[in-house]
Amino acid sequence: MKNIPVVMIIFGGSGDLAHRKLYPALFNLYEQGLIHDNFAVIGTARRPWTNDFLRDQVSDAVHETHSAVNENDLKTFASHFYYQSHDVTNIDHYKTLKSLAQELDDRYSAQGNRIFYMAMAPRFFGTIAEHINDQHLTSTGFNRIVIEKPFGRDLASAEKLNQQITASFTEDDIFRIDHYLGKEMIQNILPLRLTNPLIKNVWNNSTIKNIQVTLAEQLGVEARGGYYETSGALRDMVQNHIFQIITLLAMPEPEDLSSKSIHAAKQELLDSLLIPSEAEIARHFVRGQYLGSDTTFAYRQEANVAADSTTETFVAGEVKFKQGPVAGMPIYFRTGKEMREKKSRIDIVLKHMSNLYGQAHSNNITIVIDPDMQIYITINGQKINEPGIRRENLGYHFAKEEEAQVPDGYERLLRDVFVNDATNFTQWNELKKFWLFIDAVEAAWQKDNQAGQEPAQYLPYRMGPRAASEIFESATERWIYE
Amino acid sequence: MKNIPVVMIIFGGSGDLAHRKLYPALFNLYEQGLIHDNFAVIGTARRPWTNDFLRDQVSDAVHETHSAVNENDLKTFASHFYYQSHDVTNIDHYKTLKSLAQELDDRYSAQGNRIFYMAMAPRFFGTIAEHINDQHLTSTGFNRIVIEKPFGRDLASAEKLNQQITASFTEDDIFRIDHYLGKEMIQNILPLRLTNPLIKNVWNNSTIKNIQVTLAEQLGVEARGGYYETSGALRDMVQNHIFQIITLLAMPEPEDLSSKSIHAAKQELLDSLLIPSEAEIARHFVRGQYLGSDTTFAYRQEANVAADSTTETFVAGEVKFKQGPVAGMPIYFRTGKEMREKKSRIDIVLKHMSNLYGQAHSNNITIVIDPDMQIYITINGQKINEPGIRRENLGYHFAKEEEAQVPDGYERLLRDVFVNDATNFTQWNELKKFWLFIDAVEAAWQKDNQAGQEPAQYLPYRMGPRAASEIFESATERWIYE
Repeated sequence: MKNIPVVMIIFGGSGDLAHRKLYPALFNLYEQGLIHDNFAVIGTARRPWTNDFLRDQVSDAVHETHSAVNENDLKTFASHFYYQSHDVTNIDHYKTLKSLAQELDDRYSAQGNRIFYMAMAPRFFGTIAEHINDQHLTSTGFNRIVIEKPFGRDLASAEKLNQQITASFTEDDIFRIDHYLGKEMIQNILPLRLTNPLIKNVWNNSTIKNIQVTLAEQLGVEARGGYYETSGALRDMVQNHIFQIITLLAMPEPEDLSSKSIHAAKQELLDSLLIPSEAEIARHFVRGQYLGSDTTFAYRQEANVAADSTTETFVAGEVKFKQGPVAGMPIYFRTGKEMREKKSRIDIVLKHMSNLYGQAHSNNITIVIDPDMQIYITINGQKINEPGIRRENLGYHFAKEEEAQVPDGYERLLRDVFVNDATNFTQWNELKKFWLFIDAVEAAWQKDNQAGQEPAQYLPYRMGPRAASEIFESATERWIYE
Repeated sequence: MKNIPVVMIIFGGSGDLAHRKLYPALFNLYEQGLIHDNFAVIGTARRPWTNDFLRDQVSDAVHETHSAVNENDLKTFASHFYYQSHDVTNIDHYKTLKSLAQELDDRYSAQGNRIFYMAMAPRFFGTIAEHINDQHLTSTGFNRIVIEKPFGRDLASAEKLNQQITASFTEDDIFRIDHYLGKEMIQNILPLRLTNPLIKNVWNNSTIKNIQVTLAEQLGVEARGGYYETSGALRDMVQNHIFQIITLLAMPEPEDLSSKSIHAAKQELLDSLLIPSEAEIARHFVRGQYLGSDTTFAYRQEANVAADSTTETFVAGEVKFKQGPVAGMPIYFRTGKEMREKKSRIDIVLKHMSNLYGQAHSNNITIVIDPDMQIYITINGQKINEPGIRRENLGYHFAKEEEAQVPDGYERLLRDVFVNDATNFTQWNELKKFWLFIDAVEAAWQKDNQAGQEPAQYLPYRMGPRAASEIFESATERWIYE
């Protein structure tokens, strides 16, 4: 598709996300011709910026992310941007926004197409959605809304937000963004699973012992302590990214590669998601908080964090499904801040198979998502010049040139919004299941808090609390990535 | 084991094999203490060498293959070597040999243990074996005989040779050497197959489409045209190396790792070897002869080669078994001289599996044996930044330091002879099956010769005759290594 006509309204146009991700991605899509003559972007935020100031910001944002830029293109591109100062609670501002959008629609022949992008603090999502509805901001063409995470903070609040949004948008027009679904190696999961007999043949609960998903961050909460106190690792990382990854790993094969079929397969899996009992949560989940070091604060000492906070900066746990190729098999996950290094990876651990050589290691399939991209398979071979078996990694490490070809996740996902491809977005039914699970864990932890059981304190820049090594179903299991 | 007492008699002590392989290997085993104080080696050949001359040769041979040598050790080691001028047809010489062996046995307290090593031209094997028997050269301890290939030139001559040898030696004491079985990656086949669920799970005729064994040489026949005329690629490479590799790839899992169980499993497989019919040979076998180039001779122009020779310098063909994990599945092989590069490799090609992405490639498991050592798996992943599937090689390439640790095949196999481990040697029953197959192909080719159908002429330094690409059972098959 080329030159899609649209007026895009970005709520949070002065924010970090817009600057770092959306503007550079839009420029790339412009350079590719996906949007070209017939688009306009309205950036809104509280600050009293001018059009020119926004355009300079857009231009800066592109320069900061690109090593070479066609300046003429950039200038023309930036000229499509308009700034509208906006207080999300002020009804009049929505009226102004509406007439500006209409005016730009006319000027650019945008055919009544609108994309609304919620790039602000999540607490405003509901209010904005409400006023989009009561002020009739949608128009006569397509109307799509893109929403950043978190979508609610539990099932109840997510349901309320969803009602506010569905007042103006059908489910098909709601693009709940999860930028992990825009990552190369996440998008590679289904092709790897489905096109390789070697992998497909072992992708079942009789061959795989467990799957391990690790999303480790090295940074602490930094300036976001206030937000983080309302979230924690479970809501911030598990409810969205980790659950989406797990869904891709555990879902049955879809009928075809259409968005509809992929979501149907995901839903089939998620309908069989097992909600853990309190006893299972006590046994297979661990939450933690990072301690301080000579040069860093403990979580409880961070700005805007309560001195007796029970918010977890680390969580490890287990997910199981009743259906699907890995039904009943444990999928372990962990994510945390101030861990040893930034690393997102998936380890598929095959069952040990007794063999004539005795001490063979498990076969693993590892997909490294960040910071580099790798696929490797750990197999056994004979030791050189001595009896016994050693481990060999058969690996494919993406070369720098390959990494350079990988588009940013936001560029991919924005493209999908423009071309109306919902494959890599979260549907409401999926989200509901994720929240059901998260709510159960949060509820158990609330009880623990009341009983005086607090998150385990862990030393920063290691692999989280020691207790995370004890969540497994059997004594023969361990984290492959240590 | 340490300091094994033995007198070793090498027939062909002045030859190339002894110099390049046996003497260096024996020195390594000496440095490791496997043989030490109580051994002596008698080198025999026609030339009128002295003990000192042989010892100088041994010393040179070690220097030529070792970057660092302990000179004191080497001097002592060489002092255990004795030369005996010997005409294989002269009975008196066997008597002299016998008394020298007895004398050295006394001097070195070798406890009546003898190893006879046939390192001469194969036409002498039978005569030597006969005179070992009629002159009673075996002694009161263990008596083992090591025999280089070729073991006969067809089943009839092999049977005769075997009778000559079994007059003095039991099957357990006969070590038919195949130096391919001493190679790291060949010895790695069973560990790879049996210790990896990921591989073991697909190692069957419903998942594997075919297996391809390629032993390509870049050299021509060089000075060995005379010998080669009596052999050809089929006898020189297929009857031994290729059949042993195929056996390791296709055999059922042995009960344990003992030599006895491994040979039992091999025999179980070979009992189901399908001998191809003339029609099958016509369809699935190709023989070729290399042509000349500006700087190289055509095979028929080489020294000691008949101008109308029908001896093949290239052969491609197919092997099938009725039993075993890959029963009924084609195992293709090819070997030749003056091919593009020196390369020994095994490709296990998995069946194509229809998938949602359409154009995926087959999954292959490749084991590179020579000149470097690699294991890699070819899988499909998504193309970067465009729709579709691409091929990725997950590989393990042995590092230079690892290669350096790999002992020479002769060192391994000689060690096995000393410690009486017959695992990596060819047993008579196996050999018989190999010859049955070879004889069938040779017979069909003889008929072809009589009908004026000669080997295909192929351009040197490519991948053999074009017809080798047409031996497959189905149109969807092709050589993976092209």
